[in-house]
This record gives sequence, C-alpha cells and structure tokens, in this order.
Amino acid sequence: MQNLTESQMREIAESRAASSPTRRPISEGLEAILFEPSPVLDKGFVRVVDYMGDDNAVVQGARVSYGRGTRAVQSDRGLIRYLMRHRHTTPFELCEIKLHVRAPIFVTRQWFRHRTASINEYSARYSVLEREFYSPDPAGIAAQSASNRQGRGEAMAPEDAARVVAMLRDDAARCYDNYLWMLNEDETGAPVDPERPGVARELARINLPVGIYTQFYWKVNLWNLLRFLSLRADPHAQYEIRAFADAIAGMVRAWVPAVYEAFGDYVQNATTLSGQATALLRAALGSAEKIDPAGFNLSGRELRELLDTVPELRNRIVSGG
Amino acid sequence: MQNLTESQMREIAESRAASSPTRRPISEGLEAILFEPSPVLDKGFVRVVDYMGDDNAVVQGARVSYGRGTRAVQSDRGLIRYLMRHRHTTPFELCEIKLHVRAPIFVTRQWFRHRTASINEYSARYSVLEREFYSPDPAGIAAQSASNRQGRGEAMAPEDAARVVAMLRDDAARCYDNYLWMLNEDETGAPVDPERPGVARELARINLPVGIYTQFYWKVNLWNLLRFLSLRADPHAQYEIRAFADAIAGMVRAWVPAVYEAFGDYVQNATTLSGQATALLRAALGSAEKIDPAGFNLSGRELRELLDTVPELRNRIVSGG
Amino acid sequence: MQNLTESQMREIAESRAASSPTRRPISEGLEAILFEPSPVLDKGFVRVVDYMGDDNAVVQGARVSYGRGTRAVQSDRGLIRYLMRHRHTTPFELCEIKLHVRAPIFVTRQWFRHRTASINEYSARYSVLEREFYSPDPAGIAAQSASNRQGRGEAMAPEDAARVVAMLRDDAARCYDNYLWMLNEDETGAPVDPERPGVARELARINLPVGIYTQFYWKVNLWNLLRFLSLRADPHAQYEIRAFADAIAGMVRAWVPAVYEAFGDYVQNATTLSGQATALLRAALGSAEKIDPAGFNLSGRELRELLDTVPELRNRIVSGG
Amino acid sequence: MQNLTESQMREIAESRAASSPTRRPISEGLEAILFEPSPVLDKGFVRVVDYMGDDNAVVQGARVSYGRGTRAVQSDRGLIRYLMRHRHTTPFELCEIKLHVRAPIFVTRQWFRHRTASINEYSARYSVLEREFYSPDPAGIAAQSASNRQGRGEAMAPEDAARVVAMLRDDAARCYDNYLWMLNEDETGAPVDPERPGVARELARINLPVGIYTQFYWKVNLWNLLRFLSLRADPHAQYEIRAFADAIAGMVRAWVPAVYEAFGDYVQNATTLSGQATALLRAALGSAEKIDPAGFNLSGRELRELLDTVPELRNRIVSGG
Repeated sequence: MQNLTESQMREIAESRAASSPTRRPISEGLEAILFEPSPVLDKGFVRVVDYMGDDNAVVQGARVSYGRGTRAVQSDRGLIRYLMRHRHTTPFELCEIKLHVRAPIFVTRQWFRHRTASINEYSARYSVLEREFYSPDPAGIAAQSASNRQGRGEAMAPEDAARVVAMLRDDAARCYDNYLWMLNEDETGAPVDPERPGVARELARINLPVGIYTQFYWKVNLWNLLRFLSLRADPHAQYEIRAFADAIAGMVRAWVPAVYEAFGDYVQNATTLSGQATALLRAALGSAEKIDPAGFNLSGRELRELLDTVPELRNRIVSGG
Repeated sequence: MQNLTESQMREIAESRAASSPTRRPISEGLEAILFEPSPVLDKGFVRVVDYMGDDNAVVQGARVSYGRGTRAVQSDRGLIRYLMRHRHTTPFELCEIKLHVRAPIFVTRQWFRHRTASINEYSARYSVLEREFYSPDPAGIAAQSASNRQGRGEAMAPEDAARVVAMLRDDAARCYDNYLWMLNEDETGAPVDPERPGVARELARINLPVGIYTQFYWKVNLWNLLRFLSLRADPHAQYEIRAFADAIAGMVRAWVPAVYEAFGDYVQNATTLSGQATALLRAALGSAEKIDPAGFNLSGRELRELLDTVPELRNRIVSGG
Repeated sequence: MQNLTESQMREIAESRAASSPTRRPISEGLEAILFEPSPVLDKGFVRVVDYMGDDNAVVQGARVSYGRGTRAVQSDRGLIRYLMRHRHTTPFELCEIKLHVRAPIFVTRQWFRHRTASINEYSARYSVLEREFYSPDPAGIAAQSASNRQGRGEAMAPEDAARVVAMLRDDAARCYDNYLWMLNEDETGAPVDPERPGVARELARINLPVGIYTQFYWKVNLWNLLRFLSLRADPHAQYEIRAFADAIAGMVRAWVPAVYEAFGDYVQNATTLSGQATALLRAALGSAEKIDPAGFNLSGRELRELLDTVPELRNRIVSGG
Repeated sequence: MQNLTESQMREIAESRAASSPTRRPISEGLEAILFEPSPVLDKGFVRVVDYMGDDNAVVQGARVSYGRGTRAVQSDRGLIRYLMRHRHTTPFELCEIKLHVRAPIFVTRQWFRHRTASINEYSARYSVLEREFYSPDPAGIAAQSASNRQGRGEAMAPEDAARVVAMLRDDAARCYDNYLWMLNEDETGAPVDPERPGVARELARINLPVGIYTQFYWKVNLWNLLRFLSLRADPHAQYEIRAFADAIAGMVRAWVPAVYEAFGDYVQNATTLSGQATALLRAALGSAEKIDPAGFNLSGRELRELLDTVPELRNRIVSGG
C-alpha cells in the first residue's frame, strides 16, 4: 500500500492491535480507522494518529458558556447547528486531531499557509529524502489544463499528456540521481564512495523538485480543520490538495457526524449574498414583474456570479446591456 | 468540596465511573485523576476533563522531523531534554489538555492574556452568576502586602487583616444582593416579583466585583501550558494565579513526567545571563584575583540581580561604589 | 472632554502639532484625526495612535500573490471587492492600526476574547485605578432590559431606571472608597496615614466592580479588526461594546474607504443562506406556484430566521403547520 | 542590481522620491533605506516597504501598563533593557514592519514555519515563475558535517565544488526549459505555439527545484521578528536563511537601536544555564578546591555544552572518567 515498507506496515499493525481502557470520551468512528493510512494521490497518504473530543465535547463546551441560563430541552444536534449557523466558533475548538501525512512539497506549501496548527515535518537538513515523486495521472493533466487555462488552446491529447508525465518523471529521476551522487550516499543514508566527500544534505537537496514527497505530523483543532476543508475541499482549490482534503473530510464525518452535517449545510453548501444581491433577490421574490438589475448596483462580474449561484433568477430579471 | 452541588458531584462521579477501550496512547497519571476537581483558593478548582498525548508523543513528533537521519539509539528522556534545552518547541505542541476551572474574574483577566488557547466561559450576559466571591486568607493579606509594598508601612496586624476581609466580604455581599434585586430573580434565575420589571443580566452585573468566581473550559497545548507555568508558577506572579498554576503543575507532572523534569531543569530552575554577566562570570572563574565589575558594563540594577542569582560572585569581585 | 486631565489634553495637543516627512504611504483620513480621542459611553474614548498602510497596500499585497499573471487593467476598487467577496484574507492583514482605549472592565473582557491582537493594559497590580465607573443612561437601561429579557415583565419605568442608576453609582462609590482606605493611599498613589499599613494594590482591587474603567493600547491588523467589527458592531452584541465598535468603524471608513465599502456590502449587509434555505429560495423563484417548505428540511427555527431575512418569501410559501 | 528589471528599479526610485508629512512617529534610520533592496545571496533581496513605531513606541506601550504607578525618572533605554531582561514581550509587539523578499523556495519553507506573521506570496498557480535559481558560491559548498548532523563540515576541493555548482545549474536549467515547454509559454506568460495545448501552470511547476526564487511580502511585529532573528541569525541555522536574517538584523538596528542593543545583550549573546549547571558554576565560584562535576547530575553532553560556553570552568573541575 502506497509504498510503505514492511516494517512500517508492521509498526502500524502493532499500534492498531493495542488497546487500553480510558475514562475519556471516545469516537467509535475514529477508533475504527485509527493509525490506518488512507491512500491519496499516487504515493501519498493521510492517517489519524490521535484525537480528542467528539460531537458531545462541542455541546459541553457551549453549555459552560451558557451555563444555567439555558433550561429548555434542546437537542444536541440542534445546538450544534445553531452554533454553526451563527459562527460561534469556540466550542468547535475544543476538539483536536493529529494526522500523519505524506504529500508532495508543492501541496505542503499550500497546506502550511494555514497558520493555526502544529507541524512537525521530516527534515531534509538531517535526513536523506525518499525517492518518491508525484506523478500526475494523464487524464488529470488534461482536465486540469482545460479548466485552469480557461479554454486557451485545444484540449490535450492523450499522447501529449503521456509525454508530460514522462518528462516530469525523467526530470525527477535525474535530479534525484544527482542528489544521491552529490550526497555520496544511498537512499538509506549509507556512504557510497569513501574517498569522495559528500555535499551537506541541506545543500544537496536544492535541486529536488517541489513534486517530491515529504512527511509531517499535523495537529489542529476542529474549527481550524473545518476552515481548512472549506478552502481546500473546494472546486477552486488545486486538485492535488483537494484530494487530501476530501480524504480528511471523510475522517471528520466519522469523528463528529453532527458537526460535519452542520458544516455541510451552513458552510460548504451555503450561499453568501452581498447586500446588493440580497436586495435584488428580495425584489424578484416580491414582485410579479421582471426586475431591472441595473438599479441594484452590482458589477457585471457580481451579477454573473449571482446568476451562477441562483440560476432561477435569470427568468425574473430584465436581460439587457 | 469547594461548594459543588450534590448534582455536580454526582455527574463527576458518573463520568469517572465510565470506561471505554481506546487505541490511543493513555497517560496512567491523568486517567487516575480525570474529572476530579482539585481545590484551589477558598472556592475555586481545576480539573482535567480531557487530554491527548504523553511523553512518547513528543519523542514521536520529534522523530518525524529527524526521520531516518537519526539512527543512534538514544533514550527518549535524553531526546526530550535535548529538545527542551534547545527550545525545539513544535514536538511539545503535539500534546493537548482541556481543563475546567473555577476562578475569580481578576485571576481570569491575567490568565486570558495567554492568547494561544481555546476558552469557553460561563456567560454573565445569559446566566445569573453564582454567589461565590474570593475571600483572601488574613495571613495572606499581610504577607502579600508586605512583599508587594516593599516595606512601606509596618507589617499588617491580624486585626487589620481581619477588618480587610470583613470589608471585602460586606462589599461583595451588598453588591450581590443589589444584583439580584436589579435582576428581580433569585440565584437560580427564577423571577421574584412578577409585577416589577428586571434589569437585563448583561447590565445588572456591572457592579459585581472582580473577586466574583466565574467558570471556564481552557484547552491548550503542552508548550503553551509550560509557558503559562513559567510565568504564573513564578514568585513574581500574583499569589492567587500562582495557586492555580501550582495545582496545574502537579497535573503536568502526572501527565508527562519526563517533559516536566526537563522543564524544571532547563526553564524553571535555569538561569539566563546577559552577555555582560557571562563575561564577568567567566573572568571571575578564570582569575585568582578579584575582578572589578566596573569594566563589564552592567548597570547597578543588573549587577544586583546577578549577585542575587549567583551570590558566590560577591567574594570574587571588588566591592566598590 | 471625557474626564481627561489638562496635562493629558496638552500632551495630545503637542503630539498633534508635530509633523515629520515620511516616505511611507499616508492615509489623509487618519492623519486628520490622529491622537484625537473620540468619546464613547459616559467616560470612555478611543483614539488612533498609529497606523500602517491604506487601501493601496491591500492591492499591492494581492498583486504580489498574483504577480505577472494579472495583466488586465483592473480597478483597485474592483480588486478589493473581489478579495472581500472571496474571503482572500491575507492582503487585508497588511494594514495595521494601534488604538488607545478607555473602557469598562466588563467591555474589555469581551474585547480581549479576540486573540489575534497585541494588548498593553494599565496594571491594577502596580498602579492605583482611577475613580471612573460606567454609569448607564437610564433610557438605555430600559431599552436593553426590554430587548434582552425578551418581554419578561413590563417595560421599565423612568423612576425604576433612575433607581438602578443610583444603586450602581452608590455601590461603585462605596467600593472605591473602601479600596482607597485599604490601600491607605489617595487617588494619586500618595500615602494617607503613615502609621497604618496598606493592603497590596493587587489585592485591594478585588472588590472593585467590573464597571470600572481601565485603559489599554490595542494593535491589530485590518482583517482581524473587520472580524471584530462584524461581531461587535452587530445588533446581537452588547450595547456597550457596540458603542466602541461603532466609533472604530468610523475610523476604519476614514482610513481605508474602499475596504470599508466592500466590508459593508460583502460582510455586514450580506446574507448567508444554508444549503436548504438556498434550495427553498431557488424553488420559490423558479415556480409560479406557492412552495411547501416542508420538503426542504429546515427546522422551525431555521425557517423563521430565513423569513426574517427574506420576508418576501412569506407570500411564496404555503403556510401551514 | 540583483536581476531587477529596469522598470522595477524605476518604480522603486519613484517610491523613494515621494514624501508626505505625517503626524506619526518616524524612524530616521528606516526612512533612509525605505524601499531600497538590500542584496542577499546571488539573486535575492530584502527591502523594507513599510513600518510602524520606533524605540519610543515600546516605552510608551509599557508605560500604559505601568501607568501612574511608575513615578521614578527612568531612562527609556533602562526600561527597554528591563523589559527585554524579564521577557515582557507585549510592548515589543507594538512595532510592526513589512518586508518584500526574494528568496529560494527551500529558504521560504524554513521561514514560513514562523506562524505569527502575514504573508502574501507570488503564486505559481496563476503566474509564470521567473528563471532565477539559487546557485551557491563554490567556496560555500561544504561537505556534510560529521559532528553536527544538521550542519556543514569542511569546504570541498575547488574542482569538486565547481562540479556540484555545474550540476545544480544544469538540472535547474533543464527543468525550467521543460517547464516552459509544458506551459507552451515564454517567461512573460505569452503563448508560444498556438496549435499545441499547454499544461496548467499549477501542474507544470511541479518539476521546478526548491532552489528556484520566489517573492513575498512579510509583515511581522517586532517581538516575533526578534524571535525569528534569534533562531535564524544563529550559527545553527542554515547558511542561506542566515544570510537573510543577517540582512534583516541590520535593518532592525537602524529602526530600533535601543531594542536591538538589548536584544544582543539579553538574547543573542546571553547564556542560559540549567539548574544543574548553575549549581556547578556556583560551587566552582564559591570554592578554592576543584569541584567534581559528578555530583551535579549533568549528562556527558550537557557538561560538554557547558564547557563550550564557559571554558574557564575546565580548570575548576576535576577532570575524570
């Protein structure tokens, strides 16, 4: 699986086999998958290595802040939805998760822009990096190019995509071979030619491409994780980081199902309308006549984005200009 | 115990009675005390309500960042001490703890200046605050005043301290009575006089003294918690927050004993010497003659602080000025 | 003005009189009001004491991240609106402001929950607090109580409100007198009775009400300031902190007018609809018939909140249940 | 200078030529160098593009927190040194600086681990990266250190170093040529062969080495900047990021000279001794006899590190085992 060594697989199996009694709340959903790597892209993975809290921890945290004042019987699910709807963020911060991730460097560069998290990354100053490079799927290259280039040029033919894959692979292989030659070490860090001095690891690595895989521990609270998902499990995110975000979203669903449902309804599938767009929509709902959008002070781009979100509005406005 | 109601005590006992199997690492030391309130001051408490990680999580986090590069057998304790000595902070961030605290408002105002933590506090906008005020121990009033006032005036006589305690208590009682009168509610939030309109809770509370107790959940990672302890379990901290910090320090010792030991050696009991102080110390060690501190460019205050820290230096320098 | 002493007024006038040439961008709007205290509540104020950046700094920051890729001529205003609409937050972080605030302690307790800011507060451990307490306007007491209590009891009569004001004032005065007595100091910190030992300042202050005024410097970046405004210049915020937020909003408008306009359109006056609410709205727009909301899986509370936001929807749905 | 284009140089000159009057405090030292790029490594630079505050802002911030309680005349320099000595960090947070940096990606990966800062980076998803790669100076190419796993050891022979430089350059050139071929664009982003579809920018860049230069805006407060310098202008830091830190240190010295001096004395040139090391040192100072370190519970490594810091101690201890 995903190029893990046998000894790594064995370590994971041993971790999974152990069990201890705890007084802490547990999440059945996460216990079932704990430590198990979930494959992402061609050689990456995400696995949960620790967690704290569950749906109930959010409720419990919120009720400290409401205390005795809330007496009405209110379902936990309803409270979680209320907190999400009104962006009361602190109760969601009371859950925490720790992931172990293998991802290409260019993905981590986007990932680590999320500042409120704890990171421990494998160090290329101390260690020899593994010979693992991201090699995109040819079908993906064509699709990403088509959407990213917004129609400039033709769609990419399969043979062109294959050529790109080969080019990326050859560049990576040559750079990695040269990296080892400069180090004068093999992939395990063992010296090769005792007569020749090796280049310092921190320097030899500078020609390695950003497509090389690295590893890190990432610990984050639930609110910041949801913020990560809202940006990275989004169609505007680059495909490669989205693949990781999608895998993590599945873990969040297993961990805190009520929170995840509320997040879907109030964040991921929600619509935010500007003051102007709201006014236009209300006018359209309140009138039998078609509405002239010109009076609502939306720019062309803003109107187009609104019509993408609410296509039913097209038949309710005067098309013009 | 500490003015907890019977139903609160029962809830805690029930939480402690429950146990589930988990694949996560556990801390025996924390499991033993989980949920149990530890009394602080006259009516406050701290209790651990959840945690994540242990000593080994720090080691494991650090080894991701060392990866294959570290092959020498190295004791976990030695690695933890190395990380602490060189302030490699990120592995310590991989442990997390959640506390439930009851403390006076003036203590929370110092506490919440530590920004990197998650807080959910009981809300005085929505709920009626409890009739619980901090009443200092008379012996403490005398001691704090003597050290804080740096000898201004005489030591405080027992009867003066008793008078201060009574004054604080009477002010608090009167303000609280007036608070309930303004609310037109009793302590449980039940209306008193149906004919008379009550003041909004958010407003009625503005005459309550900062000595009133409040409650909050506090979730923080181990590194930020150690930073909190280094500032608040310190002789310069106000006695009242130090009492909480000392209680928490005992919990950290139970949780991550190797980290706590390293923290004691390299942070709490460590000495930091300025460049000038280091030069003076080295000169004193390297010479049989007494050294004239005048040549080392320390201010009078800096020299005094150094001699407090290293009193043996007094006999090695030329006293003058 | 707002109980500033003459020497404080003179210091402010002197600061305002000085001028230096700078190569940095300046904001005409903020230069005009720099250092000038803007009164808030009965004895509080906010004043801008330093700032960095302007509307253009946001544009410039964003264009580094787009670099050569953006070639189309695009108005700065359009770019700022685009960034706000899509919550591209980092360019807004490039502006910074520093405020000097005098506010009651219960207001600062809400204020300092915003963690990503720098605070330096006047210390009651080392200094004698001023005899300044917040005294609410009687009309405000009645209004807040009516809305906050959700109609429990009658509206508050003027004489009841006056009685509340008097009660708050008397409690505060008595507590402050006792505070000075315990300190055995006057308001300037000068000793009163040399024969009698005083209580430590850190301890004597514990019976002071949370309505007492304190002072602090607050430095924050523009994005976090907008986040503060979105929560605190909101009808759900307590009146007293809203008064400060409203004063600050005026300063932001003077500082970065294009950002402030976009913030109004895309955050303050914007509407966020859940996935379910969006579906219902689209159905209503797309159909000539009335829609039955039962099929859209909104709770009663969610539907009520939606109808408050988009009242025109009432006539487009089947009322029932 | 550093591969800036003529139009970039002209823009910088124009920015420097402009001047406006401001009521804000200014730093003469920074005004003199504002906008001017300071060269770092072969093609990088750092330049200050905005700032807020000066030495006096630190003093002013601290005095809010001491308020009326501090009456003794105390020089600003003394107060700054006191704050630094006792790690009172918040007054230092009141100064802010914004830098524009061009640095290799592997340097930014270390840089951005400092989380409390605002970053806007040139985007390789939307823009074509420039053909600028870090090419180390042959004299700086060193072997892996044998003693220090993180560092560089001996310099390599000139012919070996030249071969490494050539290898890095050739790999970079080939990868960049292939990058442009995949994009089917030239360096300005203009299409090359209209018949051939190009690869998405976000994907074509994945074979670019981590030695390629990128650009970013970095805004940070003074305290976090000093923390950055304490870690990155340190002999243990990688040479390449140290070159940037050293350049920035010079800017900080020009900006806040009193703070920079205190930082040197109390942080950069300071020594931190563990509890055990302090005890050993005190024993050595207090005794005419040589001391046996065995009784002080230092590990071999800890004792070696102490003797490196305080070499005069060697003659005061019993050497043994």
